[in-house]
Amino acid sequence: MSEKEVVVLGVGMHKFGRFPDKSLGDLAQEAGLMALKDAGMSPRDVQMGFCAHVYQPMMTGIQAFSSLGITGIPVTNVEVACASASRSVLLGASTILAGLCDTCMVIGLEKMGRGLIPLTGTDWPSVAHEARIGVITTPLFYSMKATRHMLEYGTKPEHFAYASVIAHRNGVLNPYAQYQREMTLEEIMNSRMICYPITLYQCCSTSDGASAVVMCSKEKARQYGTKPIFLVGWSAGSPVYIPGEWNHKFEDLSVELVAPKAYEMAGIGPGDIDVAQVHDAFSPGLIFKIEELGLCPIGEGGPFVWEGNTETNGKIPVNTDGGLIGRGHPVGATGAAMIYELVQQLRGEAGPRQVMGAKTALLQNSGGGGGNVMIFKT
Amino acid sequence: MSEKEVVVLGVGMHKFGRFPDKSLGDLAQEAGLMALKDAGMSPRDVQMGFCAHVYQPMMTGIQAFSSLGITGIPVTNVEVACASASRSVLLGASTILAGLCDTCMVIGLEKMGRGLIPLTGTDWPSVAHEARIGVITTPLFYSMKATRHMLEYGTKPEHFAYASVIAHRNGVLNPYAQYQREMTLEEIMNSRMICYPITLYQCCSTSDGASAVVMCSKEKARQYGTKPIFLVGWSAGSPVYIPGEWNHKFEDLSVELVAPKAYEMAGIGPGDIDVAQVHDAFSPGLIFKIEELGLCPIGEGGPFVWEGNTETNGKIPVNTDGGLIGRGHPVGATGAAMIYELVQQLRGEAGPRQVMGAKTALLQNSGGGGGNVMIFKT
Repeated sequence: MSEKEVVVLGVGMHKFGRFPDKSLGDLAQEAGLMALKDAGMSPRDVQMGFCAHVYQPMMTGIQAFSSLGITGIPVTNVEVACASASRSVLLGASTILAGLCDTCMVIGLEKMGRGLIPLTGTDWPSVAHEARIGVITTPLFYSMKATRHMLEYGTKPEHFAYASVIAHRNGVLNPYAQYQREMTLEEIMNSRMICYPITLYQCCSTSDGASAVVMCSKEKARQYGTKPIFLVGWSAGSPVYIPGEWNHKFEDLSVELVAPKAYEMAGIGPGDIDVAQVHDAFSPGLIFKIEELGLCPIGEGGPFVWEGNTETNGKIPVNTDGGLIGRGHPVGATGAAMIYELVQQLRGEAGPRQVMGAKTALLQNSGGGGGNVMIFKT
Repeated sequence: MSEKEVVVLGVGMHKFGRFPDKSLGDLAQEAGLMALKDAGMSPRDVQMGFCAHVYQPMMTGIQAFSSLGITGIPVTNVEVACASASRSVLLGASTILAGLCDTCMVIGLEKMGRGLIPLTGTDWPSVAHEARIGVITTPLFYSMKATRHMLEYGTKPEHFAYASVIAHRNGVLNPYAQYQREMTLEEIMNSRMICYPITLYQCCSTSDGASAVVMCSKEKARQYGTKPIFLVGWSAGSPVYIPGEWNHKFEDLSVELVAPKAYEMAGIGPGDIDVAQVHDAFSPGLIFKIEELGLCPIGEGGPFVWEGNTETNGKIPVNTDGGLIGRGHPVGATGAAMIYELVQQLRGEAGPRQVMGAKTALLQNSGGGGGNVMIFKT
């Protein structure tokens, strides 16, 4: 990584929300053209494409790229559930470092139904077993871990709910967020109970949306007149998976295993992070992740959030754009939307969401029973 | 590529065919464990996983790997239609070269229905248009190009059919092939017409099956006691795609564009290839591909095949394992099955299918409107 670096040159978004009258191509085009413009590139400059999505049909990628006039390049569809787009960026960076291309673009996109994300794959005996005993829904993973956290560390339901208060408050300041409305602690705690202690307004929503990231090698970046952001640390991992057994305490143990590698590669520690994006599919997630990433001590995440430390003017601003809860979660697009926000922050262009003087940013995106951690610097 | 190389250490297969009583995990396990054994590795040695499939549900990859005891590593699902597995190998090699891992494993798998491969994605206006006018089936792409080839070069229907004769003859010698029966030219030409000049027995079949490839860095290869095969050239590409317009002459123009890059990287030319695997989803495909890869002059593929040059004892043996037509085509598994065969050939372990003294092998795998070319050496 030292001698050859990967640079994020441009990012783009299509607002997250419900867009029944728009096609996947409409979403891809808007996010993709914005990222190209931001990178100072033309469609012809892109040499390699990745398309992150979960629920779309085969060959979605080549069509997504053609919708913005990019054709004649290899396009790979990547699926790692909610971490598809950040994994695509990681693979795209690998192809640049391996010399397979100089420039690369990731488009994350999704059009989703409403309600619980289906965890399909019932051909697999282990999943079929877990589905039969009724544990195969995502909020339950977070619920089991949240109640364990409450038992072990004294975390309170209002701590989790307060993470959602902040998420919705931040979302109001993000024009691309699905929700644009503040919610009080009472409103969140009194919303319908989904899975104790998680109420409805502590859940991310399914959404439609798209996001895009344009990358290139450090050498190539010199020819484009933009503000490059450097990808300086990265790792990917999954927890040990034993069929028929969920580790209910550490569903996302991978974060603890993965993050140190990314910090080491970047040559920094958690104390050097100025702004972070973490995977808060359900509000307890934010608290688990800031602990596992070392942004606050293990077990203290609840009071840490409650005291305002993760707010945009706090000690370590987290999910300044609203996160999955405030911004929405069109599964395949989420990881690249996280990078969109971090790039705005590192460029000092996040407007009312700006974290003053942010120089180092961290991304943590869970998905597919694992996840990715990346560190970006100005 | 010069200072740091990628090595194929092990390959494995589950027979292609119809296995209604087997799960995806059964298929993955058999192919995967064979590849690990072949590589001299234990499940714990694998640091990075890729799962190539087209029609399976989200998170198939992590389940496929767990079925052979590999867990706790990042697993990425990759879809590039019929080229999914070779693209996975290409991405896996990139992650090794980028220093993200030392060892990597690709599992390609599929369970398919019968009949035409559905080209889904009707949300995309261009595909919807083509579906409405009735051209959106794969045999038609080959048919249009075949009839054009006949017109321009005098290629005859029996030339195409003879490619299928060879494919089925080779398949008989491959215990992992779906078909194990020779067919005469008459039988093939008199089988049901699918799309002129392509008859039923000139079509690949949909199948169930799995294949696996274990790779590592050259440095890492020294600690395993196997016969390493070196990946020395590779490229990926797609043709220029114009919505609403198929380039009926060169549906797979990408091969012509992609192959020179792979030859250049390997520092060789078409004349140096001892054995090849090409994408013969329909029998004309073999003729198009050997021309586009430079294995025979443009326009002369028909007589070239008819005269026996692509047979196992011929000038340039092609698809010695039966190819897509003789071996079967479980979409996501095909690219890695191609590598399985080339590795057997380069090791001199292909038994009755052995090409004597094969030292350099070429893979061409089409899919998703593009494809991959790779060159392997002993």
